[in-house]
Amino acid sequence: MSLTEHKSTVKNQAILAKKAAKTVGLLSTEEKNEALLLIADQLEAEYETILRANEQDLQVGREKGYEAAFMDRLALSKERVYDFAEGLRQVAKLEDPIGHILSSWTLENGLEVQKITVPLGVIGMIYEARPNVTVDATGLALKSGNAIILKGGSSALTSNKSIVEVIHHALNKTKIPANAVQFISSTDREATKELFTLKDYIDVLIPRGGASLINAVVNNATVPVLETGVGNCHLYIDAKADVEKAVNILVNAKTDRPAVCNTVETVIIHEDWFRKNLHILIKLFNKYSIKVHGDTIVVSSIPEAIEAEEDDWANEYLSLEIAVKTVSSVDEAIAHIEKYGTKHSEAIVTEDKETALKFMREVDASSLYHNASTRFTDGGALGFGAEIGISTQKLHARGPMGLQALTTVKHLMSGNGQIR
Amino acid sequence: MSLTEHKSTVKNQAILAKKAAKTVGLLSTEEKNEALLLIADQLEAEYETILRANEQDLQVGREKGYEAAFMDRLALSKERVYDFAEGLRQVAKLEDPIGHILSSWTLENGLEVQKITVPLGVIGMIYEARPNVTVDATGLALKSGNAIILKGGSSALTSNKSIVEVIHHALNKTKIPANAVQFISSTDREATKELFTLKDYIDVLIPRGGASLINAVVNNATVPVLETGVGNCHLYIDAKADVEKAVNILVNAKTDRPAVCNTVETVIIHEDWFRKNLHILIKLFNKYSIKVHGDTIVVSSIPEAIEAEEDDWANEYLSLEIAVKTVSSVDEAIAHIEKYGTKHSEAIVTEDKETALKFMREVDASSLYHNASTRFTDGGALGFGAEIGISTQKLHARGPMGLQALTTVKHLMSGNGQIR
Repeated sequence: MSLTEHKSTVKNQAILAKKAAKTVGLLSTEEKNEALLLIADQLEAEYETILRANEQDLQVGREKGYEAAFMDRLALSKERVYDFAEGLRQVAKLEDPIGHILSSWTLENGLEVQKITVPLGVIGMIYEARPNVTVDATGLALKSGNAIILKGGSSALTSNKSIVEVIHHALNKTKIPANAVQFISSTDREATKELFTLKDYIDVLIPRGGASLINAVVNNATVPVLETGVGNCHLYIDAKADVEKAVNILVNAKTDRPAVCNTVETVIIHEDWFRKNLHILIKLFNKYSIKVHGDTIVVSSIPEAIEAEEDDWANEYLSLEIAVKTVSSVDEAIAHIEKYGTKHSEAIVTEDKETALKFMREVDASSLYHNASTRFTDGGALGFGAEIGISTQKLHARGPMGLQALTTVKHLMSGNGQIR
Repeated sequence: MSLTEHKSTVKNQAILAKKAAKTVGLLSTEEKNEALLLIADQLEAEYETILRANEQDLQVGREKGYEAAFMDRLALSKERVYDFAEGLRQVAKLEDPIGHILSSWTLENGLEVQKITVPLGVIGMIYEARPNVTVDATGLALKSGNAIILKGGSSALTSNKSIVEVIHHALNKTKIPANAVQFISSTDREATKELFTLKDYIDVLIPRGGASLINAVVNNATVPVLETGVGNCHLYIDAKADVEKAVNILVNAKTDRPAVCNTVETVIIHEDWFRKNLHILIKLFNKYSIKVHGDTIVVSSIPEAIEAEEDDWANEYLSLEIAVKTVSSVDEAIAHIEKYGTKHSEAIVTEDKETALKFMREVDASSLYHNASTRFTDGGALGFGAEIGISTQKLHARGPMGLQALTTVKHLMSGNGQIR
């Protein structure tokens, strides 16, 4: 397909999505929930079709020699597809975020003002391998009255296409037009770039994936972006940290799911605590097979540690590796986080309330923890019911984003002829 | 100055602003208010210096033959400088938007969660001629705990520089570092473009000015943008519109201040109402010297009307001109607004509540009016106390932006060792 054809295809899809968004945005809660439940049923009914499509992607993945963790995220099973359906049923149960009166007041001249929540319109979702995003993002977009344009990773192309077809089968039985869920099947980079600039039709782009995907979107988009997910998260173990809490939190934040964004990538340790508890740390790193990159003190104290380079402080490992830095004060810890953090999640372990307060006040991040694991930065864990991503920017939404992040507001003014 | 020097100057200013932002963000309400009051006093004390600087800009303006309205916006007087000071004293009286607990809850495991408001950090303000923005934006930024980088129009360069010097004189007596208010004095376009991409130091760009300024920012920025101000606003006069209300609102929304963004640029009129009230319309357009661009029906009915072209429907006049379109239904009116509106402010005049409700539900804009003038889309008029601009985008803030729009949130989690 030529460049021009790609462009017009993507643009046409965006135009169709915008038109469909108008319909979706005016539907009742019941109508939207009914559609979600029908999609759930349809996914279960057609799970075999989806698995056959997925097998094609897996076959390509095996031929290309993708690594195990990647293949695991890509692979579907009857159980996983049923989980997708269950996820949609959960979203159907959540409160409708549309039509809430956030505030209302009356001016002295009698003009009545209401600020209410409305859908954003069209959401552009750009993501990597995981096919579950196709279902999750669709469910959240429709529940919040939006249309969605899906651009998934090429390695899951056949799976995603099949899932969207099933979603369309279900939507054909509902009041939601099938056009409200658009899937971009072109793997051409130009097609993606076109998506970034369709400001007249797309209201927000949400990239979910690694740093390079997110940077590509931020650097090329004229459509507003909700950045998600890059978490170079730190755990600071203060001089006055309780040993048991520190160890439990370190193990959990590093090893529970090393490949996710709220995992800890650097542990900063006060040198007093470090000296006192060195034997515990060595045992811990051994037990969990955690590879240590450290500063001079760390390298000279932990037998298998290797010297950390700039990259170790600056980037996520997303694996069982960790950077370890010793400091002589909480201020030094805060300065390090300021330099290398991605404003995602940062934690302090200490029994000193003043120090904790200082850390929570001064560190600039979406989520700050005192004596708890950074792993709680998650829509599900924090009780949001669902999550479209974790915003690492400051505008619109910051931290885990639930349905509310997919809404905007309208001001409705009712008068009887008021003029200024 | 060479390109590289400009770049490094702007970047250095952004680095200084970011450092200063950390200090401003942690100050108490009293400390911030004290600084605002001192700036107000200083502006009054040094008003003559500011007027001398302004005279230089006016001299250049006269030489360049700028039009009267432009010169009027540029010109300062003792009274205007004192008004700036009074504006700061008003901002000092407003509630501090920082440190509000927006919500708080406790997870089943005992982890306490608080969502609180914090400053954005560094605000980049890019604006055209009006020197009042220099003071207003500084006041709002500091009150909300932010640092600000000001990039004003070159025609007000000397005035703005002088105002910022006075602000710095005042800040030197306060806890706010003078570096919290940066002024970019280079008029090089490259210097501005550099500002657009300093994502590591600037948290948001707010362009205030015409469509070309705003587009330049949106198309070149990697820093998130809060778009403001382009208002191609419509007034729809329905078949069931009360004549007196319709006329009063039309006159107010078009003639009160034609050059501002919440003024009406197109009036859409139901053909029944148009025919019945044609004589009133003709008298009105004559009385207020409003130049009419209309569709075929309009041109054949109003003697001095000229045929409207695509540009007339699509762009703001910001003067005493108006586009007039006749329609046969509210749906036709909504479709026209959808095609040409900028999602700023849209109004309907009708005594039919059903039609009004339909219009308010279906039109996608920040502010919708039933039987009232679009001129109320203004932070002051709606009771926000102050306004940094009117957002015409959907993310973060929509409509008039007060102090709250200059904040983001932090999630603070306090535990006793919780892990997942």
